[in-house]
Amino acid sequence: MSDSQQPEPVSPAAAPRTRPLTETPALAKLAAELLQTPSMLAELSEAELRCVVSYLRLVTYGASTSVFSQGDASNTGYLLLVLSGDVRVEAVPFAGAEAVDVSVLGPGNVIGEMGLIDGAPRATTCIAVTPVQAAALSRKGLDIMLAEHPAVAAKLMIALAKRLADRLRALDEQLGLYAKLAQDAKAELERVTGPSRR
Amino acid sequence: MSDSQQPEPVSPAAAPRTRPLTETPALAKLAAELLQTPSMLAELSEAELRCVVSYLRLVTYGASTSVFSQGDASNTGYLLLVLSGDVRVEAVPFAGAEAVDVSVLGPGNVIGEMGLIDGAPRATTCIAVTPVQAAALSRKGLDIMLAEHPAVAAKLMIALAKRLADRLRALDEQLGLYAKLAQDAKAELERVTGPSRR
Repeated sequence: MSDSQQPEPVSPAAAPRTRPLTETPALAKLAAELLQTPSMLAELSEAELRCVVSYLRLVTYGASTSVFSQGDASNTGYLLLVLSGDVRVEAVPFAGAEAVDVSVLGPGNVIGEMGLIDGAPRATTCIAVTPVQAAALSRKGLDIMLAEHPAVAAKLMIALAKRLADRLRALDEQLGLYAKLAQDAKAELERVTGPSRR
Repeated sequence: MSDSQQPEPVSPAAAPRTRPLTETPALAKLAAELLQTPSMLAELSEAELRCVVSYLRLVTYGASTSVFSQGDASNTGYLLLVLSGDVRVEAVPFAGAEAVDVSVLGPGNVIGEMGLIDGAPRATTCIAVTPVQAAALSRKGLDIMLAEHPAVAAKLMIALAKRLADRLRALDEQLGLYAKLAQDAKAELERVTGPSRR
């Protein structure tokens, strides 16, 4: 990695180096606080949250470096809880299309949970806009948590599944919107070109 | 419920009566076999599968009766594993559109897992095409499993989350297709109406 201060293109994603989050108590405390939100693990007790945090590893990204790359099958199998900094999420909706900005996510946001769950290639590209500190939960960490604290692992998985269900319901709605747009566009095209065109 | 043999419209959904699946050993055995598939709980041992089955309840539906109704907020909070018979899945893609047949699901298929996870209104309408026997897992059952057998509950939730992730990835791809179709339709409309139209 370069220490150069000059602007540079986004560096490619690589399996990041990590260390236990609990080695940095202030960040471990921040992670527990960020996890205790309604959209994440509000149902967990403080002791359970500390338990989750003990399985997290600290990972840092420089500004303008890649966190995940859409389609990347090697740099997967973990989620990230953003602790500080901003991450831009981009997606290429179909082959050949330009990348579309999906959102910018700051502290408290979780990214990459599908990769943790199924280890499949990343669905979006995520780029660190600023220097980013994040807490990673890997599949290995989840498996150890499952063996050592299965009830906490089960509650974590219920929370993650709920997030996925939320997104599925939102995507379903978006698909309905697209279906309506497609129907309207077809009707408009038939109006201007005549009914013989199908 | 009517015992009439004459054809009748689909009966409305109601919270179904259930009884423990283990009261019917042959169906409990069938449920354990159906759950041991790659798309469901293949990673669970036989003892763990029997554990899951002990939290399931048998529920039956007559032919042409409603299993779930899209938007129903009262008849939710549980998933169903189809044991026998066929269930037709329908969805209304947007308000005012006609219902679209999504699929017909037979034994071994799971429906309604989002309802189990978040208790939100049903996303699709499901109708029993034939008489249907199904094994229900309710949120209450899941909570008891979590307290009594947390490791099994965690593995079940990982499997359910993986199914949701699969569907999210598939919907993402479908959205990309729609985005491409919308772009093509816009380009075609501009071609036939001239570039002044935006």
